[in-house]
Amino acid sequence: MYNKHKRDSQFLIQALSLAEQGQGFCAPNPAVGSILVNQMGIVIATGFHTGPGKPHAEVEVLKKVSYQAREMTLYVTLEPCCHWGKTPPCTDAIIQSGLTRVVYGFRDPNPLVIAGQGMQLLKEAGIDCELISLPEIEAFYKSYYFWHKTKKPLVTAKIALSLDGKIAGKDGERVQLTGDDAQHLTHHYRKNTDAILTTAKTIIMDDPQLNARTHEAVIPKSLYVLDSQLSLPREANIFNTTKSITVFHSKTAPKEHQNSLEQKGVRCIALEETSPSVLNLDQAMIQIGNDGVIDLWVEAGGKCFSSLWKNNLIHRGLIYIAPRWFGEGLSAFENNFSLGDLSGSQIKWIQVGNDAVLEIDRDTTFADHLGKDYQAITTVHV
Amino acid sequence: MYNKHKRDSQFLIQALSLAEQGQGFCAPNPAVGSILVNQMGIVIATGFHTGPGKPHAEVEVLKKVSYQAREMTLYVTLEPCCHWGKTPPCTDAIIQSGLTRVVYGFRDPNPLVIAGQGMQLLKEAGIDCELISLPEIEAFYKSYYFWHKTKKPLVTAKIALSLDGKIAGKDGERVQLTGDDAQHLTHHYRKNTDAILTTAKTIIMDDPQLNARTHEAVIPKSLYVLDSQLSLPREANIFNTTKSITVFHSKTAPKEHQNSLEQKGVRCIALEETSPSVLNLDQAMIQIGNDGVIDLWVEAGGKCFSSLWKNNLIHRGLIYIAPRWFGEGLSAFENNFSLGDLSGSQIKWIQVGNDAVLEIDRDTTFADHLGKDYQAITTVHV
Repeated sequence: MYNKHKRDSQFLIQALSLAEQGQGFCAPNPAVGSILVNQMGIVIATGFHTGPGKPHAEVEVLKKVSYQAREMTLYVTLEPCCHWGKTPPCTDAIIQSGLTRVVYGFRDPNPLVIAGQGMQLLKEAGIDCELISLPEIEAFYKSYYFWHKTKKPLVTAKIALSLDGKIAGKDGERVQLTGDDAQHLTHHYRKNTDAILTTAKTIIMDDPQLNARTHEAVIPKSLYVLDSQLSLPREANIFNTTKSITVFHSKTAPKEHQNSLEQKGVRCIALEETSPSVLNLDQAMIQIGNDGVIDLWVEAGGKCFSSLWKNNLIHRGLIYIAPRWFGEGLSAFENNFSLGDLSGSQIKWIQVGNDAVLEIDRDTTFADHLGKDYQAITTVHV
Repeated sequence: MYNKHKRDSQFLIQALSLAEQGQGFCAPNPAVGSILVNQMGIVIATGFHTGPGKPHAEVEVLKKVSYQAREMTLYVTLEPCCHWGKTPPCTDAIIQSGLTRVVYGFRDPNPLVIAGQGMQLLKEAGIDCELISLPEIEAFYKSYYFWHKTKKPLVTAKIALSLDGKIAGKDGERVQLTGDDAQHLTHHYRKNTDAILTTAKTIIMDDPQLNARTHEAVIPKSLYVLDSQLSLPREANIFNTTKSITVFHSKTAPKEHQNSLEQKGVRCIALEETSPSVLNLDQAMIQIGNDGVIDLWVEAGGKCFSSLWKNNLIHRGLIYIAPRWFGEGLSAFENNFSLGDLSGSQIKWIQVGNDAVLEIDRDTTFADHLGKDYQAITTVHV
């Protein structure tokens, strides 16, 4: 029994590594990986979901074996769907395949799946269904769960500091603080995110590309820009390096700026202001969530980071620290900034090259959303 | 052959863990551990050097078996001595014991040992001698080697910062920045050091005890204080918590202060000044080295840290970083401070509780002392 559970867990982890290949490309769907294993424990087929409108992971796998899956077990990171979306329900494909057993790693929080009787249907068709909870898979679907509960994205924000908390040179000029390894890490995070949020100020100061540049590919991402006065420079790099640009602006922003941006294909969305020129960030998150963004990556300056942090809109803060003393330079945060009480947060320091990344997971801040319900959904062990 | 080497290495590592028990108590001798192993690979006796004038580790071990060590192997972290110091030469005891083989981990840089024919004597007595170099043991004796080459201590300096490089409150008031685990680490380092260096300013501001408080014991240490004007408060805690106090002061310091400190048992040593009220730190290190201090631990403020750093008198910098933003507060270093070029340094970040320790080993800075010679002495592999 123990060995069976261990073997099941190993196959689920293998399915997770497939799911990770789809991460950053599937929103508003979750990334899902799946493998089909025969009675001898041999992997017959593997697959993962590659994006909305494309076959789900289960179907990706089953189509490789022409639905001849008798006596086999299908491992899938997420509960198979039983509803019609852009593609037919996976439960149909599973029943038709003739396979014997389904092991999945996470109960789908999608109300359509919960309401449906997917697992019931499979059981009635004589298929054994088992949920095996693993911490790796729970962590993987945390954002998807959060998004279904709140319709807002799970937000990871990154900022890089010197040892004295500086973010840029004396006059705000860009400085490459961290080393190559930290850069690679950032591109890895960008690749895995559904969208990126930045500010017009960051674009004006640094003119970044804000795409994911990995060893294998250059991947454009959906970009959101906080730009209350629509001051985005029309010649910025982002016009050539992103998948789409949405600008959040104040209702009082110059109309002609809006027109010229829209002519360049930019979507402009007016937000309320909480105080003059300060956009309502919560509204921005609601819009981003409505767009189907599950994971949002924030890369901007200290002001943006601290505003989001104060408003409890950052779930995971990544503070990169370079072993340098700047002295004169632009301080990342105002003197009165505080990270607040971190006693309920998970704190990890990770060395990346010669730099460190301080990772703060603010679990307690979101306990209302990710607390009891989330635990209830993930404590079903076999 | 491979297995024999592996077994030898394991016994040497075991001897090292014994040596570590003596660390911080042996200066000006090195800490040494030793074990005696019979033909069956069974450990017959263990021992370590507990302090100057006490038996050396080898003798500690051999006296436990009444010199009946035929066919046995003695593992010892450092090359056995062959000269009369406060105790007779270990080579004599080894030859008398009748043991067959000696495996040691580090060639003694002590000129008396190098000049002597210790290993030659053992070989002539029919005893097999082998040096096995292990990185752990090389690291352990780095300070001892450095001290023999330079007659100055190997200096480790610690400082704790907030994320914005602050060291204390706005008016310099003491703030407990780091957590319990970091505190324990500091006491571990204090235990393992031969002496501690601080400043009168630190004592005036914080009134620390500067002893090592571990779970097992409270261990007083020799303390050196930089105090150009002899302003050390007579009621400071250190008068009750240290083994001895040496104060370095300016030649122009008030004579009556010197008298009253000397009455309290303090040793007062006048140093040159490199500029008004700035003591010659290199002179201080020469004096500390002459006192037989091999490892020196520096715990003071940012000014002391940066002066020592600039003068290349810190070999290993430990920068503790707490995940807090201070805002207003006392900056650790001046704006023009720089850690310099770290490309030749070894950089490690270690998470300690919720804090991090940035460890900078400035190997290249000391390449002249620890370079070719040190490598030559440590590259003899069996």
